[in-house]
Amino acid sequence: MAISEQASADLRLACIQFQPAIGRLDDNLKSMERLIRQAAGLGATVVVLPELADSGYVFDSQEELAAIAAPIPAGRSAMLLCSLAYELGMHIVSGLAERDGDRFFNAAMLCGPSGPIGTYRKLHLWNREKLYFQPGNLGLPVFDTAIGRIGVAICYDGWFPETYRQLALQGAELVCVPTNWVPMPGQGHHLEPMANILHKAAAHSNGIYIACADRVGTERGQPFVGRSLIVGPTGWPIAGPASEQDEEILIATIRLGDVARSRALSERNDAIGDRRTDVYG
Amino acid sequence: MAISEQASADLRLACIQFQPAIGRLDDNLKSMERLIRQAAGLGATVVVLPELADSGYVFDSQEELAAIAAPIPAGRSAMLLCSLAYELGMHIVSGLAERDGDRFFNAAMLCGPSGPIGTYRKLHLWNREKLYFQPGNLGLPVFDTAIGRIGVAICYDGWFPETYRQLALQGAELVCVPTNWVPMPGQGHHLEPMANILHKAAAHSNGIYIACADRVGTERGQPFVGRSLIVGPTGWPIAGPASEQDEEILIATIRLGDVARSRALSERNDAIGDRRTDVYG
Repeated sequence: MAISEQASADLRLACIQFQPAIGRLDDNLKSMERLIRQAAGLGATVVVLPELADSGYVFDSQEELAAIAAPIPAGRSAMLLCSLAYELGMHIVSGLAERDGDRFFNAAMLCGPSGPIGTYRKLHLWNREKLYFQPGNLGLPVFDTAIGRIGVAICYDGWFPETYRQLALQGAELVCVPTNWVPMPGQGHHLEPMANILHKAAAHSNGIYIACADRVGTERGQPFVGRSLIVGPTGWPIAGPASEQDEEILIATIRLGDVARSRALSERNDAIGDRRTDVYG
Repeated sequence: MAISEQASADLRLACIQFQPAIGRLDDNLKSMERLIRQAAGLGATVVVLPELADSGYVFDSQEELAAIAAPIPAGRSAMLLCSLAYELGMHIVSGLAERDGDRFFNAAMLCGPSGPIGTYRKLHLWNREKLYFQPGNLGLPVFDTAIGRIGVAICYDGWFPETYRQLALQGAELVCVPTNWVPMPGQGHHLEPMANILHKAAAHSNGIYIACADRVGTERGQPFVGRSLIVGPTGWPIAGPASEQDEEILIATIRLGDVARSRALSERNDAIGDRRTDVYG
């Protein structure tokens, strides 16, 4: 029957918003495992966690980062996520502090029930990240998984419309965004974070799902804005925004088949096909 | 004194939201002149009018368009705007139906107190426009005027982040957007038009002013959304959104010097300079 067939192709996606603690790997892994299990209990088969979920964000020194950062997928955080993905039959995307020899990356790992699938390294580093991390050197990969074509972006990557455009042009249907959003200049009393606006625009312009899992809390004086968000391919939120301050799990049902349909903005228009590549490459 | 110097560099910008009538050139030119004079009375020295302000939008036939479309700047609409710009000491940007030999363009003219400055032809045609107009063939020019560097985009051009990026990379400080926004698929009961979201995102990502003058009313069954908007270079509205249905003049004071400052998103970040051109060209 058509309805049940469509239902069986749906995915239950969760964005986990929580507060990692700087430098406390054990505590962070415990929080991540607890929340991933909770998302599984809510029926989620795809889970997104924040940027640098295992390490916290506001490092005081390179040594503090080095004490936690580990290889992907051979490090402790990555192995825990892979084992949970296997046990729970899930796909998991999480921001992690990555060490590769003597270099460090603000990275994200995608793993599934069959093991690690890929790594993304943040291309656009924000502020003091430039002191501790190397800029990403793996481009903007799109991973062809059993559940669909998945891209990854991290926080400030989303300030560059090129990020989502490149991922969409490479066939991404869902972009998972581990993030640690901070307040933007000029936001003042406005309630909606610019990050939410940017991701509604990017999802609409590209006709893709975007799932943003933010952190909350204030760390060494740096506040984070929360407001995790799952946006559908028409650009409207399908879950969230979450609260500014609370631990929270957002859940949405996504249908990757809607991606192609959403680009047909009118009888004669296609949001991707109408690009004037003769003018702007 | 520094304060008065800065004040003297400020511009008063107006976006005129009104309802053109399809096929009624005389009436439309009268409305445009009345509203431009009203904006001048409010102190505006830069004025933006909607897309196809002189012709209306929902054509039934090529002949209907041909009866109004005229050369720029030699046609009647363009000459009226140039004479008003001279008389009132203004810069004016207006959408106009342009004829160039046997071809028709959904165009916009920029003129100043010293005469015509330039023409832009809409690059991305929406729906039935494809039946009547040629796609723009003048690229994305940025006009270096006495009051600053001005780019122009028209309506659906704004659905492509490349449009604003290209204009910003060419030094545009202010992009004027004559538009005829229509409801987007999926908008449903959501109150904020996607067009407003897209332009807040584009202004923030590029650190530019964007001034959108929309039309109102329903024409031959096609509703327009109003909600004209002037966005500052941090991405937040500095005037509007206007109402959904009413004739209205939005006024904002803009300081083009804020453009460079707005791109310094943090001590170590620049919204344009941080682009990873090695990854996405």
